[in-house]
Amino acid sequence: MKQLLLIGIGPGNPRQITLEAVDALNRAQVFFVLDKGAVKDELLQMRKDILERYIQQPGYRLVQVEDPQREGAASDYVGAVHDWHHKRATLYARLIESELAEGECGAFLLWGEPTLYDSTLRILDLVQAAGVGIELEVIPGISSVQALAARHRIPLNRIGEPLTVLPGRRLAEQSRIDNLVVMLDGQCAFAALDDPELLIYWGAYLGTDDEILIAGPLQAVRQQILQQREQARARKGWIMDTYLLRRPL
Amino acid sequence: MKQLLLIGIGPGNPRQITLEAVDALNRAQVFFVLDKGAVKDELLQMRKDILERYIQQPGYRLVQVEDPQREGAASDYVGAVHDWHHKRATLYARLIESELAEGECGAFLLWGEPTLYDSTLRILDLVQAAGVGIELEVIPGISSVQALAARHRIPLNRIGEPLTVLPGRRLAEQSRIDNLVVMLDGQCAFAALDDPELLIYWGAYLGTDDEILIAGPLQAVRQQILQQREQARARKGWIMDTYLLRRPL
Ligand SMILES: C[S@@+](CC[C@H](N)C(=O)[O-])C[C@H]1O[C@@H](n2cnc3c(N)ncnc32)[C@H](O)[C@@H]1O
Ligand SMILES: C[S@@+](CC[C@H](N)C(=O)[O-])C[C@H]1O[C@@H](n2cnc3c(N)ncnc32)[C@H](O)[C@@H]1O
Repeated sequence: MKQLLLIGIGPGNPRQITLEAVDALNRAQVFFVLDKGAVKDELLQMRKDILERYIQQPGYRLVQVEDPQREGAASDYVGAVHDWHHKRATLYARLIESELAEGECGAFLLWGEPTLYDSTLRILDLVQAAGVGIELEVIPGISSVQALAARHRIPLNRIGEPLTVLPGRRLAEQSRIDNLVVMLDGQCAFAALDDPELLIYWGAYLGTDDEILIAGPLQAVRQQILQQREQARARKGWIMDTYLLRRPL
Repeated sequence: MKQLLLIGIGPGNPRQITLEAVDALNRAQVFFVLDKGAVKDELLQMRKDILERYIQQPGYRLVQVEDPQREGAASDYVGAVHDWHHKRATLYARLIESELAEGECGAFLLWGEPTLYDSTLRILDLVQAAGVGIELEVIPGISSVQALAARHRIPLNRIGEPLTVLPGRRLAEQSRIDNLVVMLDGQCAFAALDDPELLIYWGAYLGTDDEILIAGPLQAVRQQILQQREQARARKGWIMDTYLLRRPL
């Protein structure tokens, strides 16, 4: 059997990795790195730093691959994502075939928490279903959601109440917005909300030296967030941000 | 100023702690431990093990306190919790006053992720609001939700869809159950669901040597979960379990 570890490495701060993840880094002989777009170089460097920092035995291999681009109209988002997953499954299967010997252990270094808005596990399930003999193990990591709450020093949930996490494109359709964490919001869906009561706790590049935090009544800080977000994005070429929306009690 | 660290120590596996948390353990001179009921002894021991394992300089102090009991009828759950929080705030204020010197750093070791269904941050906000001069810092930890997903090797969310986390007492009122994680469910609210489609991924004592995992169609595995849960609870005197409910695609 070939072993594959999906290792959560936290949202950006290299100390925000678990000892279990460090142990896992040291079990793998091969690391697969797939990134795309503008984010690529910097995030790749952050991953390399983690390998260098925490791996005790030299000699591991780094396999870097160009990720297939996602295609398809926004109208069929889920369909487009499914197609993309199948393309990636084919690619991953080939990589596992060619780069990982029988009995070896490979690893994917995943941003934040591996089971939260990350497709790697789903894709490797497809690879497994296609008959490639792999054994999967998932190592949790600190999610950007947790970094957001910690840095703003706020509870994620209110007493006895639900917490919802969703992608930006699902924000507009929510009937009642409260205790809601939004990820993957390149379109700044928060800017379209006109509810005067909402509070926002926003964070970008959480855990890194570029971290930005803004909190306050949404209507009062909206412009500031949009401006700082745009400036940072322009300067660095990419941005990762997330936020929590809440109603005052 | 006095410093207070809220340190997430993960759900039970001592390797599931971050390096940031280990750094934080080594910054504190005083550790506050408040537990209650049957859970107390074993969880206290697990915390002591973590201190012993990861703290490099001996000489730290452990302050162990009997937590005030929660009172009040289930009919006013939130009110009862608020009263209890105020009682605890008074207790914590006194502890900070008497056990932590000016300039010292104290810490609370919190189960899982400190901002998820944990009242310590809220209570320390009350202490701060009452005029006690403290500086708070939150160190994220792996939540039992993440341990659950990792051990079952399942994504927490489906592509592009929301994820909801809620306490057991809010399950019955959900109109549509899908991608839902339930915590704090002493009453086994899942057992009352008769939807034939639901899948359940259940885990108890996640991350510990007593870990139990059961997954399958809810109607097929419900009895098995109830039985194993009751047996384990009777044997150990306490149980901590959580589960994810999902609909097949
Ligand atoms: C593909 S998802 C991956 C999430 C990741 N698995 C996690 O647990 O954080 C990417 C989204 O996560 C959020 N994100 C990830 N890292 C972040 C960071 N360091 N600061 C702010 N947001 C971040 C952003 O919302 C981004 O659009
Ligand atoms: C007061 S809440 C604290 C949650 C914690 N902050 C976290 O992030 O996991 C306690 C609930 O968390 C869940 N829980 C905590 N530790 C667990 C474990 N090791 N295994 C299963 N469930 C656990 C159970 O649902 C329990 O009722």
